[in-house]
Formats: sequence, structure tokens, C-alpha cells
Amino acid sequence: MDNNNTQFPKIIIIGGGFGGIQLAKKLDKKEVDVLMVDRHNYHTFQPLLYQVATGGLEPDSIAFPLRKVFRHQKNLNFRVADVKQILATEKKISTDIGDFDYDYLVIATGSETNFFGQAEIEHFSMPMKTVPEALNLRSLILQNFEEALIEKDPKRKEALMNFVVVGGGPTGVETSGALAELKNHVLINDYPELDIKNMKIYLIEGSDRVLSPFSQEASAKAKEFLKDMGVIVMENVRVNHYDGDIVTYNDTQSIHTKGVIWSAGVKGAIIPGLDKAEVVKGGRLKTNDYNLIEGYDDIFAIGDIAYMETKDYPHGHPGVAQTAIQQGQQLGENLLKIINKEKPQPFDYYDKGSMATVGRNKAVVDLKHWKFQGFFAWLTWMFVHLLFLVGFRNKVVTLINWIVNYFSYDRGSRVIIRKFDRDAMTEEQKPI
Amino acid sequence: MDNNNTQFPKIIIIGGGFGGIQLAKKLDKKEVDVLMVDRHNYHTFQPLLYQVATGGLEPDSIAFPLRKVFRHQKNLNFRVADVKQILATEKKISTDIGDFDYDYLVIATGSETNFFGQAEIEHFSMPMKTVPEALNLRSLILQNFEEALIEKDPKRKEALMNFVVVGGGPTGVETSGALAELKNHVLINDYPELDIKNMKIYLIEGSDRVLSPFSQEASAKAKEFLKDMGVIVMENVRVNHYDGDIVTYNDTQSIHTKGVIWSAGVKGAIIPGLDKAEVVKGGRLKTNDYNLIEGYDDIFAIGDIAYMETKDYPHGHPGVAQTAIQQGQQLGENLLKIINKEKPQPFDYYDKGSMATVGRNKAVVDLKHWKFQGFFAWLTWMFVHLLFLVGFRNKVVTLINWIVNYFSYDRGSRVIIRKFDRDAMTEEQKPI
Repeated sequence: MDNNNTQFPKIIIIGGGFGGIQLAKKLDKKEVDVLMVDRHNYHTFQPLLYQVATGGLEPDSIAFPLRKVFRHQKNLNFRVADVKQILATEKKISTDIGDFDYDYLVIATGSETNFFGQAEIEHFSMPMKTVPEALNLRSLILQNFEEALIEKDPKRKEALMNFVVVGGGPTGVETSGALAELKNHVLINDYPELDIKNMKIYLIEGSDRVLSPFSQEASAKAKEFLKDMGVIVMENVRVNHYDGDIVTYNDTQSIHTKGVIWSAGVKGAIIPGLDKAEVVKGGRLKTNDYNLIEGYDDIFAIGDIAYMETKDYPHGHPGVAQTAIQQGQQLGENLLKIINKEKPQPFDYYDKGSMATVGRNKAVVDLKHWKFQGFFAWLTWMFVHLLFLVGFRNKVVTLINWIVNYFSYDRGSRVIIRKFDRDAMTEEQKPI
Repeated sequence: MDNNNTQFPKIIIIGGGFGGIQLAKKLDKKEVDVLMVDRHNYHTFQPLLYQVATGGLEPDSIAFPLRKVFRHQKNLNFRVADVKQILATEKKISTDIGDFDYDYLVIATGSETNFFGQAEIEHFSMPMKTVPEALNLRSLILQNFEEALIEKDPKRKEALMNFVVVGGGPTGVETSGALAELKNHVLINDYPELDIKNMKIYLIEGSDRVLSPFSQEASAKAKEFLKDMGVIVMENVRVNHYDGDIVTYNDTQSIHTKGVIWSAGVKGAIIPGLDKAEVVKGGRLKTNDYNLIEGYDDIFAIGDIAYMETKDYPHGHPGVAQTAIQQGQQLGENLLKIINKEKPQPFDYYDKGSMATVGRNKAVVDLKHWKFQGFFAWLTWMFVHLLFLVGFRNKVVTLINWIVNYFSYDRGSRVIIRKFDRDAMTEEQKPI
């Protein structure tokens, strides 16, 4: 298949995440021929997936049609396609809808859930990296409660009301906080027949503190917020097994639960074919300072999938939206320079800080010279997330939802549109 | 299983649609013990399903959690359950989560798509009576366009861009109008590589006019609106077959299409076990003037599933939300009268009129003494639909979407969250 409309250099971008979009925009109105491919026809605003999973936001508010993003960009074609392999020597990618030629290839595939090879956990626990996964989790939470209502066996009833979030990074902290609010403000009213005290939310973190990449101050405050909201925070704890009924941790201890949310790690979403590339820890592709994958002279990687060692970041940059955005912008400019035989600029990360929200009026913000927590941090978090959310309609609808949720203490999207079929999963995913 | 909390009479309502909700609300704070069961945990606002299917609204805006509706109603329990059978002699219903006893039973199950026994059509065409079905259709429309983009075979490309709506009632008219707007304002921009002129939208109606239950004036104007928007309106046309590729009509003619939307009829969603009931045309249960199913003294039917002959409506009441709402309210009052050994009131339908929208600024309204069409009708339609939409958040989010859609000519929810798998359908539903 041919994507060649012009004689301009052909750039293929794999992935319409934060990095891919920023890069493509930098190429608007330039003399290049851009093809973006993505498995989905929409951009996912991943930082808010946990709010979809807990009924606070509609899925459509955090999914933005990629064709709409590039509606006015004449030099870009978009295809919904699953990239099967990179044929680097032929300068081609092979996809489920055919092959495409490139002069320059950019891997912006982001990351996927890392189960660290534990097939049983992968099989039974809920990841939360895509919109369908967030919707599955939303259905599961509600289905568990509907089932608990009619369950006679006390052990199974307990398991249906227990939720274990594994991994105390921003996603784990935000998800367990949102679950606590769901418990305290929504489920308590929705299920008066159940004793809501029996719903337990555990947050299990392997290191000695939640939000370990943040400041000590932020970690401590986040933990305090979580405890205030009733989350059982367990640090220095390692999960061993989960068989669909019982989570085992620290070798000897266990929790009965039918709801394990896995946010313990990510790995780069690698595409086969980059045999010369060096894949480092976490499945990231080693690049030079210009995001060029080492071993190639025409294949680049940006965002979560890229691993670049610099003086300030000797172990690579953080796997956050800002890295992807900044690398996408920089590479956009660099590609034009490379095409024009000019010298590209090495990437220099500007750390805008980190933030995570725990619940209403409760968030933590780490800036370079200023760390703050609580109500003002929570306002900051909301403002920044609205700012980066793609699309005017999405911004307005999300803001309305947040206002309604805030004043009503409610979560309006607690609907089971598609039932999550535990057994279907058991059949399909069965790798064990 | 026992749902008996008190010594009060036990009323079971099957179905949380317009009728079931109104009925249950009339029983609030009364000395009765109410159990509502529904297959879903939410109420579906069916009149706006077509806007979900065409990317204009989020699914969550028209789905409202039933537990939230009855949050403050102490004498009502709700269960997500699939009713398998009515055991009338034992005064029980049998469901997938157990049996429940009743003193009075109300069937408010509404209607389902009627394929009139045509298994092949049922197999290959898209119904639109539930939220998942509307989402399937949304995915199909977008997937067809993504596929058309890469299709080389001109016949198949044509089939992917042709849409045939069968049935010219309000749903068919509204859906084909919305498809035309999607074509004229959205798809034309999203797919500049395709020649949008090749997208054809057919509306096929068996009788001599679209909106046949409406006034002649409304039918004529709706047809004019549709034609202006580019819909090919075919009246007095009967569909014979659809094999997944070709629709055959009037015995000899055909259209190549991969998208057939079936809105040609509904039938009552009957539950087995009512052996003494008379099932009339369209699968409706014959009732007396008090919504009591003939042959029983404790089982009632309201809304789409009920068939009541009265002087003014010798062939039953129209299958619309208003009938269900009014019958639900009346039966609520009557049940309390029956329990108190008072004389119930016969049902008297108050016709508030009919309306359908075709596109922006284009709607038709039939009131008893006033018929009007166009911009003011369109405003009226929106106002009435917002009024009946359940929930403050849903009203606000829907209004915002309508405003944004109106000024931007856009449809923001054109995302394929779950791919519609034609082949999976072929495997699962295979009744032929």
C-alpha cells in the first residue's frame, strides 16, 4: 500500500498520544507527508481514566477523535491500524491494513500495563490503561456490589466488597482515593441493605512510601489524606499471588477480594522488528539526545517508550505526559532541521512539576521551588488537567461533571452499559 | 429468595422504563413493599438513542442509574435481574438471581425490536433499542468509513458508504436525518480522501408516508426536510431480504450496503408464564381499563407491553413514553385504591401530541389544535426532551452538547470505544 501523495519526505508516526499529537502539529504546513496510525480512532487522556472507572466522568469526555485533531492539517493522513512489525531495512511498517513506506519513523506507542511476567495476576486483575479497560473496571465495581447484595456466603460477600489497588504511584493513589469517595458518598446510599463498613479499600505499595517519585512531603500528605478517607495503605508490601479470590502478600498474608486493580507498573509498548535497538529496563528503547533510536538513523522514539540518558536524568525521563509533549515538540522541530540538513537540538526536559489528587479538596503538588497540598493543590490539579484535556466540548463537559459531583457528592456515570464478563475473560485471555 | 421486609402488600415492578419509574414514585411513602427488577442498573432515555448512535451525545447522558432515582424511597428495593418466568399460580417471579414473591405484579418491560420473523434480517441488521445497540451502531458507522478509505473494490467501497434505514417512524426519520448531518458536516471533513457524494442514506417506509401516525402535514414536511438534507426517501417500499451485503426490496430491486438500521417495528417484551393472557398483534398483553391483564386479578401491564381498547383508542394507545408515564401514574394510584378496597379509576389517555426532529432547525410537532414545523418546532422538541430527560447532570451535559454541536456543526462523540465485531455477531447470534 502506498501513502505517497507528494514528493515530500514521508514521516510515519505510530501512536496518537500526547507525544504523537504534538509532533504532528509541529509538522503542520511544512513540506513533509505525514501518516499517523493508531489502534484507536481517538486520543485517550490517560490521566483521567481513573475517573471514568469510578463513575465520575463519561468515557467520551476523555476520548477525543484523532481525525478531529487533524481536521485542518492537510499534509497528514490518519489510519486506524494495528502495527504488526517494523521492516527497518525496507523502510516500511507492516500493519493489519497493509504496508506503508517511510523516510522517517517515529515510535510514539507509549506504555502498557506491566504484570512483570506474573500470568496469574495478569489473568485475574484489572488493568486501567485504556478506555475499555476503565469501563470494564466501572462495570466490575458495580457488578460486585449487585452480587454482594444477594450473596449469602459471608466470605464471598466480603470478597465482593473488598478492593485491592496494587501500586502506589499516582494512578494507584488516585484510584484508591476515588474508590473511597465512591464508598463514602455513593455506595453507602445506593446499597442501604449492605453494611458499607465491610467495604475495604487496600492500597499496596512495594516501596517504603506511596508516590515514591514525589517529595517526601507529598508522599506523607497523600498517605494522610488516604487514611482520613478510610483507605488501608500498606507500604513495603509485595504481592505474591492472586487467584481470582485471594490476594497473597508478604508470602504468608492474604485478603479475600474479587476486585484487584493493577497499577504497579508499565512497560514500553514495543513493536517487533527493531532488532538493532537496545531495550532497557521497563521495555524502553534507548535513544540518543535527539530521540533517535541507537542503531538506526531514521527511527525515533518519544514519550513513555523512549529511554534517553542525560546529565540531569541519568536513568531516563519520567514516564509522564510532559515528557511525551516536550519530546514530541522537540522532535517535530528536529525532523524539519534534519530534512533541511541543519543541526538538530538535543532534548532538554523542563520539569514542570508533579501532581496527584486524592479526593475532594485533597491533592499534592510538587513544583521545583514550591510544594503544597490540600485545597489549593486540588484546584491547581483540576485547572491543569482541564487545560491539557483535548477539545472544548470535553473541557466543558468535564468541568460540569466536576462541579455537579462536587456539590452533590455524587458520581452520575455509575451505569453498567456492558457487563464485564469474568468468565469470558477466563476463556479468552487464558495464558496460564 | 424472600423480599419481604414488612407485612405490607408486596408489589413487584418488572422494568425501570418511563412507566415503571412513574408507578414506583406514586408508591413512595405508602404502606406497600416495592421490588423493582430490571436487566440493567439504569433507566434508558430511548428517544435520544439515535443521537448516541450518531455521535451527538455520550451514552451516559441518556442512561440514568436506577438506584439514584430511588435513593430516598425507603419502601423500594431494586435488583438487577433477568426475569425468566412468571409463576402466576404461586404468585412468584423466577429470575436469574432467585425467586421473588408478590401480591401484585406489574409488567412494565416495554418493547423490543420486531424483525417480523425474518431471521436473516435480524442477523445482519442493526437494531437500536438499547444503549449497547446504539453504541454498536456508532462503531459500525465509523468502522465502515475507516474501511471504505482503504477499500480498492468499488462495489464494496460503495456498500460501506451506503446506509439504509428501514422504517419511517420517528426513530427512522430521526436516525436518517442525523446520518445526513453526520455526512454533510462531519464525515465530509473527517474523510477528505473519500468522495462524500458516494455516501447515500436511504429511508425505506412500507406505508405511503413517513411518520404515518402523524398528521399529513407533518409527514409531508418531514419528507421535505429529509430530501433537503439529501436523504433518499422511499415510500410504499417493502424490504424483502438483507444478506449482509445487499438489501432487496420490492422483490426485484437492490442496494449494496454494509449498514442496515432496522427501525421498522417493535413488539412487546413478553415474559413466559402468562398462559391465560391474550397476546394481541405486536406482542402486547390485553388489559382492562385498569391495566389489569385479562385472565388475572393480580397482574398488570403498562406502557408499550399493554394493549387496552377504549372508546377513543379502539386499537390501543400509541407506543410512546406518554402512554407509559400516564399509565404508570394511574396504576400507582389505582393499586393503592385496590389495596384499600376502594374503587379504582379507569385509565384515560391525555394526548399531549407528537413530535419528531429531522435535523438542525427542522422538526415537526402535532398538537391537538395546532400543528407546526421548522425552527420553533425544533426548539419545542429540544425543550420537551430536556424536560423529560432524567437527572440534572444529564440535562446540563445534553444541553451543552447540543449547543456545541449546533454552533460547531460537529459531533464530538465519534469514537470507536469498542469495535463492533461483525463476525463475532455472525457466530453468536446465528439463528439461521
